[in-house]
Amino acid sequence: MKPEVPSHATPTDIRVRYADTDQMGFAYYANYPVWFEVGRASFLRERGVPYGDWEERGFILPVSSVAYRLFSPARYDDLVTVDTWVEKVRSRSILFRYTVSRGSTLLAEGETTHICINRDLRPTALPRDLRDAVDPRPGTGAL
Amino acid sequence: MKPEVPSHATPTDIRVRYADTDQMGFAYYANYPVWFEVGRASFLRERGVPYGDWEERGFILPVSSVAYRLFSPARYDDLVTVDTWVEKVRSRSILFRYTVSRGSTLLAEGETTHICINRDLRPTALPRDLRDAVDPRPGTGAL
Amino acid sequence: MKPEVPSHATPTDIRVRYADTDQMGFAYYANYPVWFEVGRASFLRERGVPYGDWEERGFILPVSSVAYRLFSPARYDDLVTVDTWVEKVRSRSILFRYTVSRGSTLLAEGETTHICINRDLRPTALPRDLRDAVDPRPGTGAL
Amino acid sequence: MKPEVPSHATPTDIRVRYADTDQMGFAYYANYPVWFEVGRASFLRERGVPYGDWEERGFILPVSSVAYRLFSPARYDDLVTVDTWVEKVRSRSILFRYTVSRGSTLLAEGETTHICINRDLRPTALPRDLRDAVDPRPGTGAL
Repeated sequence: MKPEVPSHATPTDIRVRYADTDQMGFAYYANYPVWFEVGRASFLRERGVPYGDWEERGFILPVSSVAYRLFSPARYDDLVTVDTWVEKVRSRSILFRYTVSRGSTLLAEGETTHICINRDLRPTALPRDLRDAVDPRPGTGAL
Repeated sequence: MKPEVPSHATPTDIRVRYADTDQMGFAYYANYPVWFEVGRASFLRERGVPYGDWEERGFILPVSSVAYRLFSPARYDDLVTVDTWVEKVRSRSILFRYTVSRGSTLLAEGETTHICINRDLRPTALPRDLRDAVDPRPGTGAL
Repeated sequence: MKPEVPSHATPTDIRVRYADTDQMGFAYYANYPVWFEVGRASFLRERGVPYGDWEERGFILPVSSVAYRLFSPARYDDLVTVDTWVEKVRSRSILFRYTVSRGSTLLAEGETTHICINRDLRPTALPRDLRDAVDPRPGTGAL
Repeated sequence: MKPEVPSHATPTDIRVRYADTDQMGFAYYANYPVWFEVGRASFLRERGVPYGDWEERGFILPVSSVAYRLFSPARYDDLVTVDTWVEKVRSRSILFRYTVSRGSTLLAEGETTHICINRDLRPTALPRDLRDAVDPRPGTGAL
Protein backbone atom coordinates (compact mmCIF):
# COMPACT_ATOMS: atom_id res chain seq x y z
CA MET A 1 0.00 0.00 0.00
CA LYS A 2 1.61 3.23 -1.12
CA PRO A 3 0.77 6.18 1.11
CA GLU A 4 -1.15 9.04 -0.41
CA VAL A 5 1.01 12.04 0.14
CA PRO A 6 0.31 15.46 -1.36
CA SER A 7 2.95 16.91 -3.63
CA HIS A 8 3.70 19.76 -1.21
CA ALA A 9 4.71 17.35 1.56
CA THR A 10 8.26 17.37 2.89
CA PRO A 11 10.02 14.00 3.20
CA THR A 12 12.40 13.36 6.08
CA ASP A 13 14.45 10.21 6.51
CA ILE A 14 14.82 8.78 9.99
CA ARG A 15 16.91 5.80 10.97
CA VAL A 16 15.28 3.64 13.68
CA ARG A 17 17.57 3.60 16.68
CA TYR A 18 18.14 0.73 19.08
CA ALA A 19 16.80 3.11 21.73
CA ASP A 20 13.51 3.16 19.80
CA THR A 21 12.99 -0.58 19.92
CA ASP A 22 11.10 -2.48 22.60
CA GLN A 23 11.11 -6.12 23.61
CA MET A 24 8.56 -6.94 20.90
CA GLY A 25 11.35 -6.08 18.48
CA PHE A 26 9.36 -3.15 17.09
CA ALA A 27 9.82 0.59 17.35
CA TYR A 28 7.88 1.52 20.50
CA TYR A 29 4.66 3.35 19.74
CA ALA A 30 5.55 6.60 21.50
CA ASN A 31 8.30 7.19 18.94
CA TYR A 32 5.77 8.18 16.31
CA PRO A 33 4.93 11.57 17.86
CA VAL A 34 8.68 12.20 18.13
CA TRP A 35 9.14 11.34 14.45
CA PHE A 36 6.21 13.62 13.58
CA GLU A 37 8.08 16.41 15.39
CA VAL A 38 11.19 15.71 13.32
CA GLY A 39 9.00 15.84 10.20
CA ARG A 40 7.45 19.18 11.26
CA ALA A 41 10.88 20.65 11.91
CA SER A 42 12.01 19.65 8.40
CA PHE A 43 8.81 20.98 6.85
CA LEU A 44 9.17 24.37 8.57
CA ARG A 45 12.89 24.61 7.84
CA GLU A 46 12.22 23.88 4.17
CA ARG A 47 9.59 26.61 4.06
CA GLY A 48 12.11 29.10 5.39
CA VAL A 49 10.42 29.40 8.79
CA PRO A 50 12.32 27.09 11.19
CA TYR A 51 10.39 26.44 14.38
CA GLY A 52 13.15 27.97 16.50
CA ASP A 53 12.44 31.30 14.78
CA TRP A 54 8.76 31.13 15.78
CA GLU A 55 9.71 30.73 19.44
CA GLU A 56 12.27 33.51 19.23
CA ARG A 57 9.54 35.82 17.92
CA GLY A 58 7.31 34.73 20.82
CA PHE A 59 4.99 32.34 18.99
CA ILE A 60 4.89 28.94 20.66
CA LEU A 61 3.02 26.03 19.07
CA PRO A 62 2.09 23.44 21.70
CA VAL A 63 0.25 20.35 20.57
CA SER A 64 -3.45 20.21 21.43
CA SER A 65 -4.35 16.88 19.84
CA VAL A 66 -2.66 13.85 18.34
CA ALA A 67 -4.00 10.86 16.45
CA TYR A 68 -2.19 8.11 14.61
CA ARG A 69 -2.71 4.64 13.28
CA LEU A 70 -0.06 1.96 12.99
CA PHE A 71 -0.33 -0.48 10.11
CA SER A 72 2.98 -2.28 10.16
CA PRO A 73 5.88 -2.19 12.61
CA ALA A 74 9.14 -0.34 12.09
CA ARG A 75 12.23 -2.25 13.17
CA TYR A 76 15.78 -1.57 14.26
CA ASP A 77 17.92 0.14 11.64
CA ASP A 78 15.01 0.64 9.24
CA LEU A 79 15.28 3.81 7.25
CA VAL A 80 11.77 5.25 7.39
CA THR A 81 10.45 8.34 5.65
CA VAL A 82 8.16 10.78 7.40
CA ASP A 83 6.18 12.81 4.87
CA THR A 84 4.81 15.95 6.47
CA TRP A 85 2.36 18.55 5.26
CA VAL A 86 -0.01 21.19 6.57
CA GLU A 87 -3.62 20.20 6.04
CA LYS A 88 -5.22 23.36 7.38
CA VAL A 89 -4.20 26.71 8.82
CA ARG A 90 -6.58 28.72 10.99
CA SER A 91 -5.91 32.06 12.60
CA ARG A 92 -4.84 30.38 15.84
CA SER A 93 -4.13 26.78 14.95
CA ILE A 94 -2.40 24.51 12.46
CA LEU A 95 -3.22 20.94 11.48
CA PHE A 96 -0.24 18.85 10.36
CA ARG A 97 -0.56 15.45 8.69
CA TYR A 98 2.07 12.73 8.40
CA THR A 99 2.74 9.39 6.87
CA VAL A 100 5.56 7.09 7.91
CA SER A 101 6.69 4.63 5.27
CA ARG A 102 9.53 2.25 4.51
CA GLY A 103 10.02 2.10 0.79
CA SER A 104 6.57 1.60 -0.68
CA THR A 105 5.11 0.21 2.57
CA LEU A 106 2.95 2.55 4.62
CA LEU A 107 3.76 1.97 8.29
CA ALA A 108 1.70 4.68 9.95
CA GLU A 109 -0.27 7.83 9.38
CA GLY A 110 -1.14 10.57 11.82
CA GLU A 111 -1.99 14.15 12.53
CA THR A 112 -1.28 16.78 15.17
CA THR A 113 -3.12 20.00 15.91
CA HIS A 114 -1.18 22.92 17.31
CA ILE A 115 -2.47 26.07 18.90
CA CYS A 116 -0.48 29.29 18.96
CA ILE A 117 0.32 30.88 22.32
CA ASN A 118 2.55 33.75 23.33
CA ARG A 119 5.23 33.90 26.03
CA ASP A 120 2.52 34.48 28.66
CA LEU A 121 0.97 31.20 27.47
CA ARG A 122 -2.12 33.00 26.13
CA PRO A 123 -3.71 32.00 22.82
CA THR A 124 -2.64 34.38 20.10
CA ALA A 125 -3.10 34.72 16.34
CA LEU A 126 -0.44 33.31 14.06
CA PRO A 127 1.41 36.15 12.37
CA ARG A 128 0.55 36.60 8.69
CA ASP A 129 3.99 35.76 7.32
CA LEU A 130 4.17 32.50 9.24
CA ARG A 131 0.66 31.52 8.16
CA ASP A 132 1.48 32.26 4.56
CA ALA A 133 4.70 30.28 4.72
CA VAL A 134 2.95 27.08 5.78
CA ASP A 135 -0.40 27.53 4.06
CA PRO A 136 -1.18 24.60 1.79
CA ARG A 137 -3.13 26.89 -0.60
CA PRO A 138 -0.68 29.65 -1.50
CA GLY A 139 -2.31 32.61 -3.15
CA THR A 140 -5.69 32.18 -1.52
CA GLY A 141 -4.55 33.20 1.95
CA ALA A 142 -5.03 31.18 5.10
CA LEU A 143 -8.55 30.21 6.19
CA MET B 1 -13.01 20.54 34.90
CA LYS B 2 -13.12 17.21 36.70
CA PRO B 3 -12.48 14.28 34.39
CA GLU B 4 -15.28 11.76 33.95
CA VAL B 5 -13.75 8.49 34.95
CA PRO B 6 -15.75 5.27 35.31
CA SER B 7 -15.70 3.61 38.71
CA HIS B 8 -13.83 0.58 37.37
CA ALA B 9 -10.86 2.68 36.26
CA THR B 10 -7.45 2.10 37.82
CA PRO B 11 -5.58 5.21 39.04
CA THR B 12 -1.78 5.36 38.72
CA ASP B 13 0.34 8.21 40.03
CA ILE B 14 3.25 9.38 37.91
CA ARG B 15 5.79 12.02 38.87
CA VAL B 16 6.84 14.21 35.92
CA ARG B 17 10.57 13.78 35.41
CA TYR B 18 13.03 16.43 34.27
CA ALA B 19 13.65 14.10 31.33
CA ASP B 20 10.00 14.59 30.36
CA THR B 21 10.20 18.37 30.13
CA ASP B 22 11.01 20.34 27.00
CA GLN B 23 12.22 23.88 26.48
CA MET B 24 8.63 25.19 26.64
CA GLY B 25 8.79 24.10 30.28
CA PHE B 26 6.02 21.53 29.70
CA ALA B 27 6.03 17.76 29.64
CA TYR B 28 6.78 16.93 25.99
CA TYR B 29 3.77 15.57 24.15
CA ALA B 30 5.21 12.13 23.35
CA ASN B 31 5.24 11.33 27.08
CA TYR B 32 1.47 10.82 27.10
CA PRO B 33 1.55 7.50 25.23
CA VAL B 34 4.26 6.36 27.66
CA TRP B 35 2.11 7.35 30.61
CA PHE B 36 -0.83 5.52 29.04
CA GLU B 37 1.36 2.42 28.92
CA VAL B 38 2.16 2.83 32.63
CA GLY B 39 -1.57 3.15 33.29
CA ARG B 40 -2.34 0.00 31.25
CA ALA B 41 0.31 -1.95 33.14
CA SER B 42 -1.26 -0.93 36.47
CA PHE B 43 -4.74 -1.74 35.21
CA LEU B 44 -3.71 -5.23 34.08
CA ARG B 45 -1.69 -5.91 37.22
CA GLU B 46 -4.64 -4.90 39.37
CA ARG B 47 -6.90 -7.27 37.44
CA GLY B 48 -4.51 -10.12 38.12
CA VAL B 49 -3.32 -10.39 34.52
CA PRO B 50 -0.02 -8.48 34.32
CA TYR B 51 0.98 -7.74 30.73
CA GLY B 52 4.19 -9.75 31.09
CA ASP B 53 2.06 -12.86 31.62
CA TRP B 54 0.23 -12.25 28.34
CA GLU B 55 3.52 -12.17 26.45
CA GLU B 56 4.79 -15.26 28.25
CA ARG B 57 1.67 -17.09 27.12
CA GLY B 58 2.29 -15.90 23.56
CA PHE B 59 -0.30 -13.14 23.33
CA ILE B 60 1.25 -9.86 22.28
CA LEU B 61 -0.79 -6.65 22.23
CA PRO B 62 0.75 -4.10 19.87
CA VAL B 63 -0.93 -0.73 19.53
CA SER B 64 -2.89 -0.17 16.33
CA SER B 65 -4.20 3.33 16.99
CA VAL B 66 -3.69 6.19 19.40
CA ALA B 67 -5.57 9.43 19.96
CA TYR B 68 -5.24 12.01 22.69
CA ARG B 69 -6.10 15.58 23.44
CA LEU B 70 -4.11 17.92 25.65
CA PHE B 71 -6.01 20.52 27.65
CA SER B 72 -3.44 21.87 30.04
CA PRO B 73 0.31 21.26 30.36
CA ALA B 74 1.96 19.04 32.94
CA ARG B 75 5.14 20.47 34.44
CA TYR B 76 8.29 19.28 36.15
CA ASP B 77 7.71 17.44 39.41
CA ASP B 78 3.91 17.47 39.02
CA LEU B 79 2.27 14.39 40.46
CA VAL B 80 -0.25 13.43 37.80
CA THR B 81 -2.80 10.63 37.91
CA VAL B 82 -3.48 8.41 34.93
CA ASP B 83 -6.92 6.80 35.21
CA THR B 84 -7.13 3.78 32.94
CA TRP B 85 -10.03 1.58 31.93
CA VAL B 86 -11.10 -0.79 29.18
CA GLU B 87 -13.86 0.67 27.07
CA LYS B 88 -14.43 -2.30 24.82
CA VAL B 89 -13.13 -5.84 24.34
CA ARG B 90 -13.54 -7.64 21.05
CA SER B 91 -12.34 -11.13 20.18
CA ARG B 92 -9.10 -9.76 18.72
CA SER B 93 -8.77 -6.24 20.05
CA ILE B 94 -9.03 -4.08 23.16
CA LEU B 95 -9.84 -0.39 23.47
CA PHE B 96 -8.30 1.36 26.47
CA ARG B 97 -9.24 4.85 27.63
CA TYR B 98 -7.26 7.21 29.82
CA THR B 99 -7.45 10.52 31.56
CA VAL B 100 -4.45 12.37 32.94
CA SER B 101 -5.21 14.80 35.73
CA ARG B 102 -3.45 16.83 38.40
CA GLY B 103 -5.72 17.10 41.41
CA SER B 104 -9.10 18.13 40.00
CA THR B 105 -7.63 19.51 36.77
CA LEU B 106 -7.99 17.38 33.67
CA LEU B 107 -4.76 17.66 31.68
CA ALA B 108 -5.38 15.15 28.89
CA GLU B 109 -7.55 12.32 27.75
CA GLY B 110 -6.80 9.60 25.26
CA GLU B 111 -7.36 6.12 23.96
CA THR B 112 -5.35 3.29 22.44
CA THR B 113 -6.52 0.30 20.46
CA HIS B 114 -4.56 -2.93 20.68
CA ILE B 115 -4.75 -5.96 18.48
CA CYS B 116 -3.73 -9.40 19.66
CA ILE B 117 -1.02 -11.27 17.78
CA ASN B 118 0.89 -14.46 18.49
CA ARG B 119 4.63 -15.09 18.45
CA ASP B 120 4.54 -15.44 14.67
CA LEU B 121 3.04 -11.95 14.56
CA ARG B 122 -0.30 -13.24 13.24
CA PRO B 123 -3.61 -11.88 14.51
CA THR B 124 -5.10 -14.25 17.05
CA ALA B 125 -8.09 -14.33 19.38
CA LEU B 126 -7.66 -13.15 22.95
CA PRO B 127 -7.94 -16.11 25.28
CA ARG B 128 -11.19 -16.23 27.24
CA ASP B 129 -9.66 -15.77 30.69
CA LEU B 130 -7.77 -12.67 29.64
CA ARG B 131 -10.85 -11.19 27.98
CA ASP B 132 -12.91 -11.84 31.06
CA ALA B 133 -10.29 -10.30 33.32
CA VAL B 134 -10.35 -6.96 31.53
CA ASP B 135 -13.95 -6.90 30.34
CA PRO B 136 -15.74 -3.77 31.53
CA ARG B 137 -19.04 -5.69 31.71
CA PRO B 138 -18.30 -8.69 33.89
CA GLY B 139 -21.00 -11.36 33.71
CA THR B 140 -22.11 -10.52 30.19
CA GLY B 141 -19.01 -11.88 28.48
CA ALA B 142 -16.86 -9.98 26.03
CA LEU B 143 -18.36 -8.72 22.77
CA MET C 1 26.00 -9.12 45.64
CA LYS C 2 24.37 -6.63 47.94
CA PRO C 3 25.16 -3.05 47.01
CA GLU C 4 27.04 -0.96 49.54
CA VAL C 5 24.80 1.96 50.22
CA PRO C 6 25.47 4.51 52.96
CA SER C 7 22.80 4.92 55.59
CA HIS C 8 22.00 8.48 54.50
CA ALA C 9 21.01 7.33 50.99
CA THR C 10 17.45 7.83 49.78
CA PRO C 11 15.76 4.82 48.17
CA THR C 12 13.36 5.33 45.25
CA ASP C 13 11.37 2.57 43.62
CA ILE C 14 11.01 2.63 39.84
CA ARG C 15 8.96 0.22 37.77
CA VAL C 16 10.62 -0.65 34.44
CA ARG C 17 8.30 0.46 31.64
CA TYR C 18 7.78 -1.26 28.31
CA ALA C 19 9.07 2.00 26.83
CA ASP C 20 12.36 1.35 28.61
CA THR C 21 12.94 -2.05 27.04
CA ASP C 22 14.84 -2.70 23.84
CA GLN C 23 14.91 -5.64 21.47
CA MET C 24 17.48 -7.43 23.65
CA GLY C 25 14.66 -7.64 26.18
CA PHE C 26 16.62 -5.47 28.64
CA ALA C 27 16.10 -1.94 29.87
CA TYR C 28 18.00 0.20 27.34
CA TYR C 29 21.21 1.62 28.77
CA ALA C 30 20.25 5.29 28.44
CA ASN C 31 17.51 4.78 31.02
CA TYR C 32 20.03 4.68 33.84
CA PRO C 33 20.83 8.43 33.74
CA VAL C 34 17.06 9.06 33.74
CA TRP C 35 16.62 6.81 36.76
CA PHE C 36 19.51 8.60 38.47
CA GLU C 37 17.60 11.86 37.91
CA VAL C 38 14.51 10.35 39.53
CA GLY C 39 16.70 9.27 42.45
CA ARG C 40 18.19 12.78 42.81
CA ALA C 41 14.74 14.34 42.77
CA SER C 42 13.65 12.03 45.61
CA PHE C 43 16.83 12.70 47.55
CA LEU C 44 16.41 16.48 47.31
CA ARG C 45 12.69 16.34 48.08
CA GLU C 46 13.38 14.25 51.16
CA ARG C 47 15.96 16.76 52.34
CA GLY C 48 13.39 19.53 52.06
CA VAL C 49 15.07 21.18 49.08
CA PRO C 50 13.20 19.96 45.96
CA TYR C 51 15.13 20.65 42.78
CA GLY C 52 12.33 22.86 41.43
CA ASP C 53 12.99 25.25 44.31
CA TRP C 54 16.66 25.53 43.34
CA GLU C 55 15.71 26.58 39.84
CA GLU C 56 13.12 29.03 41.12
CA ARG C 57 15.81 30.68 43.23
CA GLY C 58 18.04 30.85 40.16
CA PHE C 59 20.43 27.98 40.89
CA ILE C 60 20.57 25.52 38.02
CA LEU C 61 22.48 22.25 38.34
CA PRO C 62 23.44 20.90 34.91
CA VAL C 63 25.34 17.66 34.73
CA SER C 64 29.04 17.93 33.90
CA SER C 65 30.00 14.26 34.04
CA VAL C 66 28.38 10.86 34.22
CA ALA C 67 29.76 7.39 34.79
CA TYR C 68 28.01 4.11 35.39
CA ARG C 69 28.60 0.39 35.24
CA LEU C 70 25.99 -2.22 34.44
CA PHE C 71 26.30 -5.61 36.13
CA SER C 72 23.01 -7.29 35.36
CA PRO C 73 20.10 -6.28 33.14
CA ALA C 74 16.81 -4.84 34.35
CA ARG C 75 13.74 -6.23 32.58
CA TYR C 76 10.19 -5.25 31.84
CA ASP C 77 8.04 -4.72 34.92
CA ASP C 78 10.94 -5.16 37.33
CA LEU C 79 10.64 -3.03 40.41
CA VAL C 80 14.12 -1.59 40.85
CA THR C 81 15.40 0.58 43.66
CA VAL C 82 17.64 3.55 43.04
CA ASP C 83 19.59 4.44 46.17
CA THR C 84 20.91 7.98 45.94
CA TRP C 85 23.32 9.93 48.07
CA VAL C 86 25.64 12.91 47.91
CA GLU C 87 29.27 11.88 48.03
CA LYS C 88 30.80 15.32 48.05
CA VAL C 89 29.73 18.96 48.02
CA ARG C 90 32.07 21.67 46.86
CA SER C 91 31.34 25.38 46.67
CA ARG C 92 30.29 25.10 43.04
CA SER C 93 29.64 21.43 42.43
CA ILE C 94 27.96 18.34 43.82
CA LEU C 95 28.84 14.69 43.32
CA PHE C 96 25.90 12.27 43.52
CA ARG C 97 26.26 8.50 43.73
CA TYR C 98 23.68 5.84 42.90
CA THR C 99 23.09 2.16 43.00
CA VAL C 100 20.30 0.41 41.12
CA SER C 101 19.23 -2.92 42.58
CA ARG C 102 16.44 -5.45 42.33
CA GLY C 103 15.95 -7.06 45.70
CA SER C 104 19.41 -8.05 46.85
CA THR C 105 20.88 -8.01 43.32
CA LEU C 106 22.99 -5.02 42.36
CA LEU C 107 22.18 -4.13 38.75
CA ALA C 108 24.19 -0.95 38.30
CA GLU C 109 26.10 1.76 40.06
CA GLY C 110 26.90 5.24 38.92
CA GLU C 111 27.71 8.85 39.67
CA THR C 112 26.95 12.28 38.28
CA THR C 113 28.73 15.54 38.87
CA HIS C 114 26.72 18.76 38.73
CA ILE C 115 27.97 22.29 38.52
CA CYS C 116 25.93 25.24 39.72
CA ILE C 117 25.10 28.01 37.26
CA ASN C 118 22.81 31.02 37.46
CA ARG C 119 20.11 32.16 35.03
CA ASP C 120 22.79 33.78 32.85
CA LEU C 121 24.42 30.34 32.66
CA ARG C 122 27.48 31.51 34.60
CA PRO C 123 29.10 29.31 37.26
CA THR C 124 28.01 30.43 40.69
CA ALA C 125 28.46 29.27 44.28
CA LEU C 126 25.84 27.03 45.81
CA PRO C 127 23.97 28.95 48.48
CA ARG C 128 24.84 27.91 52.02
CA ASP C 129 21.42 26.55 52.96
CA LEU C 130 21.29 24.30 49.92
CA ARG C 131 24.82 23.03 50.53
CA ASP C 132 23.99 22.29 54.12
CA ALA C 133 20.80 20.47 53.17
CA VAL C 134 22.61 17.98 50.96
CA ASP C 135 25.95 17.78 52.71
CA PRO C 136 26.84 14.23 53.67
CA ARG C 137 28.75 15.46 56.72
CA PRO C 138 26.27 17.65 58.58
CA GLY C 139 27.90 19.76 61.27
CA THR C 140 31.26 20.00 59.57
CA GLY C 141 30.12 22.27 56.75
CA ALA C 142 30.60 21.64 53.07
CA LEU C 143 34.10 21.25 51.68
CA MET D 1 38.51 23.69 21.61
CA LYS D 2 38.69 21.34 18.67
CA PRO D 3 38.12 17.73 19.65
CA GLU D 4 40.97 15.29 19.08
CA VAL D 5 39.49 12.65 16.87
CA PRO D 6 41.52 9.88 15.28
CA SER D 7 41.48 9.69 11.51
CA HIS D 8 39.69 6.33 11.52
CA ALA D 9 36.68 7.80 13.37
CA THR D 10 33.28 7.82 11.69
CA PRO D 11 31.35 11.12 11.80
CA THR D 12 27.55 11.07 12.15
CA ASP D 13 25.37 14.17 12.05
CA ILE D 14 22.45 14.35 14.47
CA ARG D 15 19.89 17.11 14.61
CA VAL D 16 18.81 17.96 18.18
CA ARG D 17 15.07 17.30 18.47
CA TYR D 18 12.59 19.25 20.55
CA ALA D 19 12.01 15.94 22.34
CA ASP D 20 15.66 16.06 23.42
CA THR D 21 15.39 19.45 25.14
CA ASP D 22 14.54 20.00 28.78
CA GLN D 23 13.30 23.03 30.65
CA MET D 24 16.86 24.35 31.02
CA GLY D 25 16.72 24.79 27.26
CA PHE D 26 19.52 22.25 26.79
CA ALA D 27 19.57 18.75 25.35
CA TYR D 28 18.84 16.53 28.37
CA TYR D 29 21.89 14.62 29.56
CA ALA D 30 20.50 11.12 28.91
CA ASN D 31 20.48 11.85 25.17
CA TYR D 32 24.24 11.45 24.97
CA PRO D 33 24.24 7.66 25.39
CA VAL D 34 21.53 7.53 22.70
CA TRP D 35 23.67 9.64 20.37
CA PHE D 36 26.65 7.39 21.11
CA GLU D 37 24.49 4.46 19.99
CA VAL D 38 23.68 6.28 16.74
CA GLY D 39 27.39 6.89 16.28
CA ARG D 40 28.22 3.20 16.89
CA ALA D 41 25.60 2.11 14.38
CA SER D 42 27.14 4.39 11.74
CA PHE D 43 30.63 3.21 12.57
CA LEU D 44 29.68 -0.48 12.24
CA ARG D 45 27.64 0.11 9.08
CA GLU D 46 30.57 1.94 7.50
CA ARG D 47 32.88 -0.97 8.36
CA GLY D 48 30.53 -3.35 6.59
CA VAL D 49 29.37 -5.05 9.79
CA PRO D 50 26.03 -3.42 10.74
CA TYR D 51 25.03 -4.18 14.30
CA GLY D 52 21.84 -5.92 13.18
CA ASP D 53 24.02 -8.53 11.46
CA TRP D 54 25.86 -9.25 14.72
CA GLU D 55 22.59 -9.97 16.48
CA GLU D 56 21.37 -12.12 13.61
CA ARG D 57 24.51 -14.20 13.92
CA GLY D 58 23.88 -14.52 17.67
CA PHE D 59 26.43 -12.02 18.97
CA ILE D 60 24.83 -9.44 21.24
CA LEU D 61 26.82 -6.48 22.55
CA PRO D 62 25.25 -5.09 25.72
CA VAL D 63 26.88 -2.11 27.37
CA SER D 64 28.83 -2.82 30.54
CA SER D 65 30.08 0.67 31.32
CA VAL D 66 29.52 4.24 30.23
CA ALA D 67 31.34 7.47 31.00
CA TYR D 68 30.98 10.92 29.51
CA ARG D 69 31.77 14.51 30.24
CA LEU D 70 29.72 17.49 29.11
CA PHE D 71 31.57 20.69 28.32
CA SER D 72 28.98 22.85 26.63
CA PRO D 73 25.23 22.36 26.09
CA ALA D 74 23.61 21.30 22.84
CA ARG D 75 20.41 23.17 22.01
CA TYR D 76 17.27 22.68 19.97
CA ASP D 77 17.88 22.29 16.25
CA ASP D 78 21.65 22.22 16.62
CA LEU D 79 23.34 19.98 14.12
CA VAL D 80 25.88 18.08 16.17
CA THR D 81 28.48 15.61 14.97
CA VAL D 82 29.23 12.41 16.83
CA ASP D 83 32.67 11.09 15.95
CA THR D 84 32.96 7.42 16.84
CA TRP D 85 35.89 5.06 16.93
CA VAL D 86 37.01 1.82 18.51
CA GLU D 87 39.74 2.37 21.04
CA LYS D 88 40.37 -1.23 21.92
CA VAL D 89 39.14 -4.70 20.98
CA ARG D 90 39.57 -7.65 23.30
CA SER D 91 38.46 -11.22 22.71
CA ARG D 92 35.20 -10.58 24.56
CA SER D 93 34.80 -6.83 24.74
CA ILE D 94 35.02 -3.63 22.74
CA LEU D 95 35.75 -0.10 23.92
CA PHE D 96 34.18 2.68 21.84
CA ARG D 97 35.07 6.34 22.16
CA TYR D 98 33.03 9.35 21.06
CA THR D 99 33.16 13.08 20.77
CA VAL D 100 30.13 15.28 20.23
CA SER D 101 30.84 18.61 18.63
CA ARG D 102 29.05 21.51 16.97
CA GLY D 103 31.30 22.98 14.33
CA SER D 104 34.67 23.42 16.03
CA THR D 105 33.20 23.39 19.54
CA LEU D 106 33.58 20.21 21.55
CA LEU D 107 30.37 19.64 23.49
CA ALA D 108 31.02 16.26 25.03
CA GLU D 109 33.25 13.22 24.99
CA GLY D 110 32.56 9.74 26.19
CA GLU D 111 33.17 6.04 26.02
CA THR D 112 31.23 2.82 26.29
CA THR D 113 32.44 -0.70 26.94
CA HIS D 114 30.54 -3.62 25.45
CA ILE D 115 30.77 -7.26 26.29
CA CYS D 116 29.80 -9.97 23.84
CA ILE D 117 27.14 -12.47 24.83
CA ASN D 118 25.29 -15.17 22.91
CA ARG D 119 21.54 -15.81 22.67
CA ASP D 120 21.66 -17.64 26.01
CA LEU D 121 23.10 -14.43 27.47
CA ARG D 122 26.45 -16.11 28.20
CA PRO D 123 29.74 -14.31 27.58
CA THR D 124 31.27 -15.44 24.33
CA ALA D 125 34.25 -14.55 22.19
CA LEU D 126 33.80 -12.06 19.36
CA PRO D 127 34.14 -13.86 16.03
CA ARG D 128 37.37 -13.14 14.20
CA ASP D 129 35.82 -11.38 11.21
CA LEU D 130 33.87 -8.97 13.40
CA ARG D 131 36.94 -8.23 15.52
CA ASP D 132 39.00 -7.57 12.43
CA ALA D 133 36.35 -5.30 10.95
CA VAL D 134 36.37 -2.95 13.93
CA ASP D 135 39.95 -3.30 15.05
CA PRO D 136 41.71 0.07 15.17
CA ARG D 137 45.03 -1.57 14.25
CA PRO D 138 44.32 -3.50 11.08
CA GLY D 139 47.03 -5.99 10.20
CA THR D 140 48.18 -6.55 13.75
CA GLY D 141 45.14 -8.51 14.82
CA ALA D 142 42.98 -7.74 17.77
CA LEU D 143 44.47 -7.70 21.26
